[in-house]
Amino acid sequence: MSFWAGYPEVQHELERVQHLIDQETAGPGGLISRALSDLTRRDAKFLRPGFVVLAGRIGNGGVPLGEGAIERAAAIEMLHMASLIHDDIVDGARTRRGGDSLHITLGSKRAVLAGDYLFARSFALFAKSSGQEGLRLLTPSVARLVSSVIDESSGLDESPASGLPGGSLRFNLSPRRYLHRIVGKTAVLFALSFHAGALEADTPSKDLIEPLRRVGYNLGVGFQIIDDLLDIAGDPRKTGKPRGTDLRAGVVTLPLILAMQKDSGKILPKLADQARHARWRRTRVHALEEVRRLVSRCGAFQETWSVAERYTRRAEREILRLPPGADRDTLQEATTRLLRRSA
Amino acid sequence: MSFWAGYPEVQHELERVQHLIDQETAGPGGLISRALSDLTRRDAKFLRPGFVVLAGRIGNGGVPLGEGAIERAAAIEMLHMASLIHDDIVDGARTRRGGDSLHITLGSKRAVLAGDYLFARSFALFAKSSGQEGLRLLTPSVARLVSSVIDESSGLDESPASGLPGGSLRFNLSPRRYLHRIVGKTAVLFALSFHAGALEADTPSKDLIEPLRRVGYNLGVGFQIIDDLLDIAGDPRKTGKPRGTDLRAGVVTLPLILAMQKDSGKILPKLADQARHARWRRTRVHALEEVRRLVSRCGAFQETWSVAERYTRRAEREILRLPPGADRDTLQEATTRLLRRSA
Repeated sequence: MSFWAGYPEVQHELERVQHLIDQETAGPGGLISRALSDLTRRDAKFLRPGFVVLAGRIGNGGVPLGEGAIERAAAIEMLHMASLIHDDIVDGARTRRGGDSLHITLGSKRAVLAGDYLFARSFALFAKSSGQEGLRLLTPSVARLVSSVIDESSGLDESPASGLPGGSLRFNLSPRRYLHRIVGKTAVLFALSFHAGALEADTPSKDLIEPLRRVGYNLGVGFQIIDDLLDIAGDPRKTGKPRGTDLRAGVVTLPLILAMQKDSGKILPKLADQARHARWRRTRVHALEEVRRLVSRCGAFQETWSVAERYTRRAEREILRLPPGADRDTLQEATTRLLRRSA
Repeated sequence: MSFWAGYPEVQHELERVQHLIDQETAGPGGLISRALSDLTRRDAKFLRPGFVVLAGRIGNGGVPLGEGAIERAAAIEMLHMASLIHDDIVDGARTRRGGDSLHITLGSKRAVLAGDYLFARSFALFAKSSGQEGLRLLTPSVARLVSSVIDESSGLDESPASGLPGGSLRFNLSPRRYLHRIVGKTAVLFALSFHAGALEADTPSKDLIEPLRRVGYNLGVGFQIIDDLLDIAGDPRKTGKPRGTDLRAGVVTLPLILAMQKDSGKILPKLADQARHARWRRTRVHALEEVRRLVSRCGAFQETWSVAERYTRRAEREILRLPPGADRDTLQEATTRLLRRSA
């Protein structure tokens, strides 16, 4: 929640969200509840609930939010948590938010169930708090989210026996398919968060909902591109995860796709393969560093940054269409902080 | 679908359900779609969609069903499939419906995603086809289902590192808690299936919905008790799975609970432990056979059977409260076939 530290009105509502998530995750009891409670308490940005809160306040003129908006915010964060837990199983990622992934602390089997529980409670909470229209928003977003993760996982080893990501990376992913994928993975849920907040207005009009959704969409795409950029080019001490996590999990992102298009010597696939599968750790680390250097030198980082910048500017333009006030200013600042993170 | 082979009206509607599931599962493409399509085609009884169809026909007087009922039937079957796929991962079960489990053919990681995809599409389909009331039915049922599986999985090894079910079985489960668990695991979804069919009536009245729900509930409890009984006492050639699957997965069921209450020599826990963890396969098989003999000799099979019989009779009584006709007769026959399966 520290992301929203400077905004007491937002923070106050997010504490209500946190309280509700605590109640919901206490359900199963035992190890699973303890692990879930721990996960929400780690350095979670609470971005999506924050967006619900801000959109809700922009729509209702800044008065405290009704219980429905708090429930939708909690539901969306729980959905996000569920997808992180299952993603970490799929990617074999050992850390999350600076601690062990849930499949490490709970074992894969309980982690599957913990994710399922969050999925189910998330839908129940959303169903309780929203009209049918609300649910018609949520359910296709989730289906789209899972499809994108499946699409991403096509880089996994085709031989299921090993259980480890392996095989050759599919570099020939078009930037277009990459964008389609991250829209599903991130932007759709960001847009939904803003929409879920807008439902808090007395009469949620199209003139309010549409620009809010577009803010979420563009913010989501921009955010994910920068996340993917920082995964290769970022400072691990700032990002909180080792460099090259995506590459090692078999996930090809925009910087690599763009670099591949310029890689006349076809040296990148070989290096990427070494970074993933070389027998010795030192060889893998060295190959990863070589990948980073090549991608940087050919200008692919800069190009990736420009694409993100385009979405950032679009989000900022849409924000200016919203009713002015302190909450719009907060949203603007949050956008700047998220999308102008330095590599 | 072969379970409904003698009922062409039901079978015809179930073909529409199958067709819709095929469309839905084609979404992700590749290995996952192939595995899902294969799973629906194996010897699936299509019990839950069959109940939706029968309840729908009983409610509307036997005319062909509208698209909404077909969508709800497909959604419930997909939900059931999702839970089977994830359960098999959790239990480490290698076979399902006479073939390899999905985590065997796809690997655990893809199987997690395949289940998630079905969950998400199932909710989307239900949201599309039902009013908000319908969704307020579905979502708590799913949350209850997952909670019951989590409760059941408390028999899993507490040390996540091994990834295998281990540790000591908790035999001190009360029959009450066992019943609570199987209600969540099976009866809630059976009741929901009947309710989802009842929504097909022009004006779904309480007088129709309530008895239908009670049929589903009692049928579900009876069905699950018999399933658990057959897991220890049944003929593997008839059940299609090796004996003692539950015990080996660390799941304690009614026959064992009742036998434990009579086991003055406290020999059962030791044997159960051997059946699960003994080093040699022959020792495990022998211990399992000893467990079966002990449970049989102390009368626990007979007692378990009587409990199931109580629920069977309740289901049959509730069926007689429904509007008479060919569909009610079909439901009665189906109930008899499901609940009077011989051990």
